[in-house]
Amino acid sequence: MSPKITVELLRQLRQAMKNSKYITEPIQAYIIPSGDAHQSEYIAPCDCRREFICGFNGSAGTAIVTEQHAALWTDGRYFLQASQQMDNNWTLMKMGLKETPSQEDWLVSILPENSKVGVDPWIIAADQWKNMSKALSSAGHSLVAVQDNLIDTIWEDRPAPPSTKLITLGLKYTGLTWQDKVTALRGKMAERKISWFVVTALDEIAWLFNLRGSDIEYNPVFFAYAIIGISNIKLFVDSKRLLDPAVQEHLELDSPSKPELTIQCFPYESVYTELQAVCAALAPKEKMWICDKASCALTQVIPKSHRSVIPYTPLCLAKAVKNPTEIQAMKMAHIKDAVALCELFAWLEKEIPKGTVTEISVADKAEELRSQQRDFVGLSFPTISSVGPNGAIIHYRPLPETNRTLSLNEVYLIDSGAQYLDGTTDVTRTVHFGTPTDYEKECFTYVLKGHIAVSAAVFPNGTKGHLLDSFARAALWDSGLDYLHGTGHGVGCFLNVHEGPCGISYKTFADEPLEAGMIVSDEPGYYEDGSFGIRIENVVLVIPAKTKYNYRNRGSLTFEPLTLVPIQLKMINTDLLTQKEHDWVNDYHKKCRETIGAELERQGRKEALDWLIRETQPIIH
Amino acid sequence: MSPKITVELLRQLRQAMKNSKYITEPIQAYIIPSGDAHQSEYIAPCDCRREFICGFNGSAGTAIVTEQHAALWTDGRYFLQASQQMDNNWTLMKMGLKETPSQEDWLVSILPENSKVGVDPWIIAADQWKNMSKALSSAGHSLVAVQDNLIDTIWEDRPAPPSTKLITLGLKYTGLTWQDKVTALRGKMAERKISWFVVTALDEIAWLFNLRGSDIEYNPVFFAYAIIGISNIKLFVDSKRLLDPAVQEHLELDSPSKPELTIQCFPYESVYTELQAVCAALAPKEKMWICDKASCALTQVIPKSHRSVIPYTPLCLAKAVKNPTEIQAMKMAHIKDAVALCELFAWLEKEIPKGTVTEISVADKAEELRSQQRDFVGLSFPTISSVGPNGAIIHYRPLPETNRTLSLNEVYLIDSGAQYLDGTTDVTRTVHFGTPTDYEKECFTYVLKGHIAVSAAVFPNGTKGHLLDSFARAALWDSGLDYLHGTGHGVGCFLNVHEGPCGISYKTFADEPLEAGMIVSDEPGYYEDGSFGIRIENVVLVIPAKTKYNYRNRGSLTFEPLTLVPIQLKMINTDLLTQKEHDWVNDYHKKCRETIGAELERQGRKEALDWLIRETQPIIH
Repeated sequence: MSPKITVELLRQLRQAMKNSKYITEPIQAYIIPSGDAHQSEYIAPCDCRREFICGFNGSAGTAIVTEQHAALWTDGRYFLQASQQMDNNWTLMKMGLKETPSQEDWLVSILPENSKVGVDPWIIAADQWKNMSKALSSAGHSLVAVQDNLIDTIWEDRPAPPSTKLITLGLKYTGLTWQDKVTALRGKMAERKISWFVVTALDEIAWLFNLRGSDIEYNPVFFAYAIIGISNIKLFVDSKRLLDPAVQEHLELDSPSKPELTIQCFPYESVYTELQAVCAALAPKEKMWICDKASCALTQVIPKSHRSVIPYTPLCLAKAVKNPTEIQAMKMAHIKDAVALCELFAWLEKEIPKGTVTEISVADKAEELRSQQRDFVGLSFPTISSVGPNGAIIHYRPLPETNRTLSLNEVYLIDSGAQYLDGTTDVTRTVHFGTPTDYEKECFTYVLKGHIAVSAAVFPNGTKGHLLDSFARAALWDSGLDYLHGTGHGVGCFLNVHEGPCGISYKTFADEPLEAGMIVSDEPGYYEDGSFGIRIENVVLVIPAKTKYNYRNRGSLTFEPLTLVPIQLKMINTDLLTQKEHDWVNDYHKKCRETIGAELERQGRKEALDWLIRETQPIIH
Repeated sequence: MSPKITVELLRQLRQAMKNSKYITEPIQAYIIPSGDAHQSEYIAPCDCRREFICGFNGSAGTAIVTEQHAALWTDGRYFLQASQQMDNNWTLMKMGLKETPSQEDWLVSILPENSKVGVDPWIIAADQWKNMSKALSSAGHSLVAVQDNLIDTIWEDRPAPPSTKLITLGLKYTGLTWQDKVTALRGKMAERKISWFVVTALDEIAWLFNLRGSDIEYNPVFFAYAIIGISNIKLFVDSKRLLDPAVQEHLELDSPSKPELTIQCFPYESVYTELQAVCAALAPKEKMWICDKASCALTQVIPKSHRSVIPYTPLCLAKAVKNPTEIQAMKMAHIKDAVALCELFAWLEKEIPKGTVTEISVADKAEELRSQQRDFVGLSFPTISSVGPNGAIIHYRPLPETNRTLSLNEVYLIDSGAQYLDGTTDVTRTVHFGTPTDYEKECFTYVLKGHIAVSAAVFPNGTKGHLLDSFARAALWDSGLDYLHGTGHGVGCFLNVHEGPCGISYKTFADEPLEAGMIVSDEPGYYEDGSFGIRIENVVLVIPAKTKYNYRNRGSLTFEPLTLVPIQLKMINTDLLTQKEHDWVNDYHKKCRETIGAELERQGRKEALDWLIRETQPIIH
């Protein structure tokens, strides 16, 4: 991977930072956040401004350019990748390490007195704006909103914003009509005496209206805003998309069943002026909800006295707790996904000895096999297919120049997933096709112990996911090992593969408590730079747990794995497992064999079935 | 325990809330926080205003009185106690339960429009003021500072503020002179370009000057403030206390060794005006540190442009990491403390069958035995001595009307500790003098498993204590049990038994990472209302851990128990222990036998030695 050459781009950007066409006074620094106007994690090509300026294309990171310096902040998943993708005009700021300054501290340490720091107010979240602005002012600087995005001014062949066809989802997949969801939302609003709610997160809009799109690769969302009132529904979306009769009928655009369920449609761009109009008509005590992750531009339209900024919206919370229809659909998606992966592994065992299988060809094969499954829509994120040292790049994506051949001598890690109409999958398996070393097995077994510790954990109702994070690390910690990423993230139902408000991470305290019906990933790992990477990931469903006692009638929860793909026994040092862990592995493999076996049988995929039966033999303690 | 009758007091307080002698406009609510002007957890009798108004005397809780309502917020340790101590004019607000409103939400829900809420600005921390003020204003109310404390206006026989004799501590106990400490502090200030630091926490002042007092029972501190400049030291303390020649010499009041180490002494009350004077003389860019837990009154003296509010002061951090002399001293204190407890348990075994031993008499006996040890100063907190159902009151303190007799039929819990010149102790043991039930043993064993899980945990440098909290709960959670308090707190060295900035709790994310040399408690428990309480508490020292590998050279940490008192084997269901847990118990008991046995031998305490040897026999798996 060769780094992007950025000398000329930085020169142009620094000129723009002084150009009175865009700004009234020169700015001494310009912040380029990672997201789009909806603070999406994955973004459309037209929004890849941070990648454009520095070359780093990971899913998280913020670039800051000053007159003298250019620096990029990203987290442990991306240290290696970022250092390879950026040229030496850029300084990599490794977040989470003690010696790394925060963006604020770094700016304060290098800016000349009374500096102005610019940012596009549409792509910075209101809470980030607030923190940054406060830190800068207290050091005598100021944060200023630059209305023209300065990257766009130097980006000659910037792609056009997408406007893909919308997919309507029926009750069979959603369990609730969009009308039911709007009514439930209004109930929450009424409870809190809120008269309006500005919906800015793309997955919340998609979930609310039971619509999907493909504006952003891997995430079945579409560019839109919504403003929901107690008796109004305002939807802001490219009007061409509403010409589709299926969409018209789904949204009841011509014949709404009830007046308060009439959707008023507006062009996407008019959200700003329409929100201004709604705000102008507010009665003195009326309150409007907006998420603290909404853009600074939109948040500031709402007068402070009417603004109620919330960390997680009621849609985010409602979406996270899957209803029985969604749970059933997610289970079905995971069964189909496991079928494809069993086929893949059976195929790999045959093909690898030929020496022609590469990281890219496995990723392609995995996509091909998944695409044969019913209701397949696309991948849920770029497949991480990595051999040996590439496995240590946590969010590695094989490129022609990095592509390695699978062999019998190296550890292979594949982290992949798909979007089906009935659900979203995300699974990681780490395997060896020859004989793993004792050290590789030892590390794999620690990771497995951590995976099981979370998956089998029993915990009281009301527990936040971050309290489970250390369970995943204890076995690694005992041996002086660790991994620099969280343990799990929420997973959408035919929606974003990463979603809030729950997760399992040492990094946040603001997660919402886990509830039965939530779906998260469980994915501890271990990475040895230059050698190999190990990760074991299942998507798991939060379910009620039966316990011997029930302290204060709180009830307990645990997890049920939705992912049903064998964990390679060859990689396990069974001497390091407790009896309970042995039993977990055997029970898990029994469930894989029964559930996926039946589907492989039904689909007549004999080779994969043989492979599955072989790989799920019980281990003896 | 009969509740305090508060009808008349509430009537008087509500009158004061409208009395123009104290306030310009009537207030609709008055907040009575728990602390003193230094936000101490334990307080002097003159500061027990919250207890005076509502009757509840636990260490944490906030009372709010409105025209119609009176409510008290406290945490899980005190639910039972508070409900017993308060009459029915008071509503108990159980913090940590989902249905309990925050103080802010509750006020907003019940106050008439445009209400004024009053509070004494000296006893509310600046951060609490800020949060409360923000919440109230956003609902149209306001928080106002009432200079006269309204409780004091109705408290006829309020005790006078204390002014006890000061104790000077030499290098033998402290490892560093106060001059060294001031110099190190100035180094930290210079690093951050800070010219002044207002020290408000009593234990920080005591630690900095190597002085102790007894103004507050159990905490060897004295009422004082300090303002440290790069070349000034201003100490605010009752001037009578400085007449003692030992103190004069210790502080070099007559002949300072260096000009910048000259202490200027001022009366305690003049801190406000002196701070105003220092602030008036500040150069434009000068910055002053003050802790966010300092009083609102003092914080607001510092102009915002000069104010740098910090969550943990450098003194708090320096004090938390014990130096080798302090560690050695703490170990010695814990050996002496264990000697006293071994004697106590040996005595109890003989005395209980006589039927004359009560909760109070054990507490007295424990104090007597501790007082026989060298350098004993006093207790470090009120002894929790509780039989059967009283054990479920987490911070129970036996009173004549609740006093129960120890018997062969009930579980007995004793949580006690002392102040010695060389250190502070805090230990809980739960024992049964007859035959515990299977259920009692089962619960005890889960608690023990949690205790061991923390004590034996290995974790990377930089880990915050809250990440270890779930280890203490996992065994309980598995069976549907839990406890509603944190797992550990920092412990001072001949200082407060509770100190920041580290701890082990699910409740905070703002703790500082654990470092070698820090000392915390490890005290999981289980409480069955109306039946029994179980807690196993050791004070443990953070030490470097040797691990097989060393990921990214971060290094690992673990704990070494300082408390060396046997854990009753009779209470353990050994079938529930893993081999590793068995080994931990045997290793721990071996260390108790060797270390405490030698001291018992030296002190010629034969009966206690026999008891110790009997109680530390290895268990066989």
